[in-house]
Amino acid sequence: MRITVLTGGIGGARFLAGVRAYARKAGADVTAVVNVGDDVRMHGLQICPDLDSVMYTLGGAHDPERGWGRVGETWTIKDELAAYGAEPTWFGLGDKDVATHLVRTTMLTAGYPLSQVTAALCDRWRPGVTMLPATDDRLETHVVVDVDGERKAIHFQEWWVRYRGNVPTHRFVFVGADAAKPAPGVLEAIGGADVVLIAPSNPVVSIAPILAVPGIREAVADGPAPVVGVSPIIGGSPVRGMADKCLATVGVEVTAQGVGALYGADLLDGWLVDTTDQGADVPGVTTRAAPLWMTDEEATAKMVEEAIELSGKE
Amino acid sequence: MRITVLTGGIGGARFLAGVRAYARKAGADVTAVVNVGDDVRMHGLQICPDLDSVMYTLGGAHDPERGWGRVGETWTIKDELAAYGAEPTWFGLGDKDVATHLVRTTMLTAGYPLSQVTAALCDRWRPGVTMLPATDDRLETHVVVDVDGERKAIHFQEWWVRYRGNVPTHRFVFVGADAAKPAPGVLEAIGGADVVLIAPSNPVVSIAPILAVPGIREAVADGPAPVVGVSPIIGGSPVRGMADKCLATVGVEVTAQGVGALYGADLLDGWLVDTTDQGADVPGVTTRAAPLWMTDEEATAKMVEEAIELSGKE
Repeated sequence: MRITVLTGGIGGARFLAGVRAYARKAGADVTAVVNVGDDVRMHGLQICPDLDSVMYTLGGAHDPERGWGRVGETWTIKDELAAYGAEPTWFGLGDKDVATHLVRTTMLTAGYPLSQVTAALCDRWRPGVTMLPATDDRLETHVVVDVDGERKAIHFQEWWVRYRGNVPTHRFVFVGADAAKPAPGVLEAIGGADVVLIAPSNPVVSIAPILAVPGIREAVADGPAPVVGVSPIIGGSPVRGMADKCLATVGVEVTAQGVGALYGADLLDGWLVDTTDQGADVPGVTTRAAPLWMTDEEATAKMVEEAIELSGKE
Repeated sequence: MRITVLTGGIGGARFLAGVRAYARKAGADVTAVVNVGDDVRMHGLQICPDLDSVMYTLGGAHDPERGWGRVGETWTIKDELAAYGAEPTWFGLGDKDVATHLVRTTMLTAGYPLSQVTAALCDRWRPGVTMLPATDDRLETHVVVDVDGERKAIHFQEWWVRYRGNVPTHRFVFVGADAAKPAPGVLEAIGGADVVLIAPSNPVVSIAPILAVPGIREAVADGPAPVVGVSPIIGGSPVRGMADKCLATVGVEVTAQGVGALYGADLLDGWLVDTTDQGADVPGVTTRAAPLWMTDEEATAKMVEEAIELSGKE
């Protein structure tokens, strides 16, 4: 069996650990198509938060308490950059993490596409799944906000990390999406999958930027594989992160049903919601309820099993 | 009084601390024209060892035991890069140091010349002297060597750090020197000086690359200021570093007299040697003997005083 997962964010990385655990038992191959909209160049370093979250989490090197970045991280570089007055100072740039960014940036500068760079980094982390960036092209999520009485577009990281989303927010723009091409292997992984899963990631800023790459939405919606999404909303609240603020911005109700309807029947065949949200109704989509708290890998693997069952491909 | 110093290496940085101490007492302004031949790009970072040695030493942030780099340095990045298998692994890239290189590289990438970048970094370190790179242009010292039976040119850092000079060595090449221009302020600092000092730096790989920038040798040799050099050789041995290997490569005797003759009367007016080397004779140059061990700042300032006296400008 081949399972392809659209994913982003920390929740997506944790979900993938469950997919991997399920796949090991079921003898399945897993490919993760990872959001790159969060990617940003800071201090000359190309930073790919979602790819790194997957890599570190599946490589067993993530910080489980902080959620992002490396366990046992140190912050010498960050302190030093601040001492130089180098902007921005609000981004958490750990020393270990910087080494990853240095290797990545050096390879990108040498002309390797992000997909090959990611594969090279995975030589160290051995995540046990094939990791593909959604695209090798520049695609950045920017946010149209009002700051100091001025309307402007800021990078997603600035909105998320610096402002914690606490600024009047008008819309999200996926800069470069129009001209982006799916990274090598992405369309093949979707078209050749037995099941496509949509991780319980932020639908607006983790999954939407993947689907914004021309060709990917069509491949998912029109491909042969059943598509099952897992709700990132439990009982009216995001499991983690700020999906509530993002959904409010795009005018979608912060419920499992709301997010299911946002994806809709043209994308989804099945929609897995938490038992709390039993009865969520998405026209044209088969819904099913199961416990969706990813308390540990076993619980997460069980969720994945429910999603696979829902797809009818178990 | 205006003192301009040609300098490079760790000995040169230590010498400058003495020049600064002398200048504070004498009410003099100091400009350091610093070698850039050691500069190298590694892991995407533009590293300027000689500029940094001066900056850290005069900023009181250098490691006095190791000689180079920052005191209290940590090595997380270096270990991580090695874990990724990122080459080269033989270069000592400290975490604090990396922050300096990140700021520098970001500014260079943004289009600022090295001289402006250096001034910006000095906003933090306040070295108390004006620091100028010899040139803003690319000038790198490469070394023609035999490695594994093959003759090739390697970067000076590879020769110095990786091989410790222990390979058959044929010559030094200052790549880019022909087309390099003196950095803004360099010719003015030399032409407007009351005294020009040549630090007891490695004559072959610290001072020669400075003089290889078209216009600088002429400005020093033909300018109005007396030029006094300080010998880096005491009693037939280099005070530190590998001047002996470098001098052997260019066929110069490893003595105070040999180095004095290498610079020669067209460059030097005075040549300060250690008391051990009393009697060193450089045709056309006034020699003088004084203790040249830079044991502390006070002893070094006394050396500088002797050099200034020798210039006749005290």
